[in-house]
Amino acid sequence: MNTDEIEYWLNLSNKLAINVENAINKSRDDPLNNNVTKIGADGTPTHKIDEYAEDAAIKTLKNSKKSVILISEEIGTITIGEDNAKFLMVLDPLDGTSNAMKNLPCYGISIAIAEIKNGEPIESITLNDVEIGYVKNFANGDVYTAVKGKGAKKNNKIMSKISNITKINESTLCTYIYRTKNQKVKELCSSVRRMRILGSIAIELCYVAEGTYDIFLDEGKIIRIFDIAAGQLILKENKGVITDRYSEKLVNNLTLTEKTSLVACANKKLHENVIKLLN
Amino acid sequence: MNTDEIEYWLNLSNKLAINVENAINKSRDDPLNNNVTKIGADGTPTHKIDEYAEDAAIKTLKNSKKSVILISEEIGTITIGEDNAKFLMVLDPLDGTSNAMKNLPCYGISIAIAEIKNGEPIESITLNDVEIGYVKNFANGDVYTAVKGKGAKKNNKIMSKISNITKINESTLCTYIYRTKNQKVKELCSSVRRMRILGSIAIELCYVAEGTYDIFLDEGKIIRIFDIAAGQLILKENKGVITDRYSEKLVNNLTLTEKTSLVACANKKLHENVIKLLN
Repeated sequence: MNTDEIEYWLNLSNKLAINVENAINKSRDDPLNNNVTKIGADGTPTHKIDEYAEDAAIKTLKNSKKSVILISEEIGTITIGEDNAKFLMVLDPLDGTSNAMKNLPCYGISIAIAEIKNGEPIESITLNDVEIGYVKNFANGDVYTAVKGKGAKKNNKIMSKISNITKINESTLCTYIYRTKNQKVKELCSSVRRMRILGSIAIELCYVAEGTYDIFLDEGKIIRIFDIAAGQLILKENKGVITDRYSEKLVNNLTLTEKTSLVACANKKLHENVIKLLN
Repeated sequence: MNTDEIEYWLNLSNKLAINVENAINKSRDDPLNNNVTKIGADGTPTHKIDEYAEDAAIKTLKNSKKSVILISEEIGTITIGEDNAKFLMVLDPLDGTSNAMKNLPCYGISIAIAEIKNGEPIESITLNDVEIGYVKNFANGDVYTAVKGKGAKKNNKIMSKISNITKINESTLCTYIYRTKNQKVKELCSSVRRMRILGSIAIELCYVAEGTYDIFLDEGKIIRIFDIAAGQLILKENKGVITDRYSEKLVNNLTLTEKTSLVACANKKLHENVIKLLN
């Protein structure tokens, strides 16, 4: 991607975030806002608030200049603009829907953008091809961005240093533990300094990137690639380490149904310690 | 407490919140802000940010009209004003210190006020005597208040309805699970709809009160009365149910060292279901 394209997509991401947030705020006047309306393209229930968010995003993209193939949670895969789109966008207009409904201060938008080179089929594009990651926490306005090879920013400034904690017993862990039967994970949980569960994976990967968390873990292969497409780049660009639970690099395809396990850590040494404990 | 006294203490609580928040924001310029400076009167480490917060609170109280016996996390028990103070204030100037240091959006002030009747020794005053509860989440500005017998408010409006979920498998649970070895608690965790851990008990009790959480649980007798003095009144005044893990009413004394287990639920039926599972 050249500099102009990078600027174009970062600006458009900002526009998407503003329009989606406005739609969410307006949606709160709708008494049916928290109702489930259908099952989305990703197979999970769509709430009316999700529809408001996605509609605003699609409208914004339709009014933008460049063609794009969009993969989004409720609508699935669609082409916006010309058929020969050069870019792929993986969008979650609202990550942390239940938090948004309950006003728990951690919910937002996640946008990942990859280039489609020489008309290659989008099925061959992987997480590793994501060149721009953009996450905004609507609850407090924090914006996290990354451009592949050019580092990560928070609120337009170089992101503060990632954590240098390497010992498990000093670390802050996020894991959706209540869904696991794995004894090793339970062991990990009782070893850490503290645990947090805020309920938005996209934002919580940014928390690892900026040193708020030290570890984000899921050993159950239930993490949707879709949800981490932006956050994983932001983490890697601030020197974090992210693999599956066997320490394998994540090269999954960018589809709605693709899933993985996840070990995201602030540094290599801590990552090694977590992998050792798990395996 | 008469109407004038209630108004006085609610106004003073607002003033305390503003001054403490300003002090915390200023403290962020201090490079030593996140350092541990001493062990507080409650036996836990004091960070410099906690000192900034408490100093601002004490200054505010010294400049206020009514005498008060203050119990606060770092300083312990002191009298501010005349010796014959008619009121007791249990104050945590900054609940969720590590969240505040990391900018995780859940940290704030907790203020509980009880009347000292006919010069009774403050050691005989219990949680049940708290007449005013005030909690503010500095991260998003939300203010939760309750006056005994007069209901609970959020941001000065009658608080929205508490959750009517009665089934454990539909509920949102907060518990600091990683500190428990209890098999029953682990069972509970794998039964709920979702879990959240935000890391400020004072605010998280308000989350139960306003229907964001359905259950807040700690079975280990590690919850400081001090931390829940305001939140428990806010929850009870919005019709929540709060006991220890044996379903006993909380009548603990208002001291820095007193601790309890805790089962706080949105309603009686859900509370019965949790107690049944635990015992």
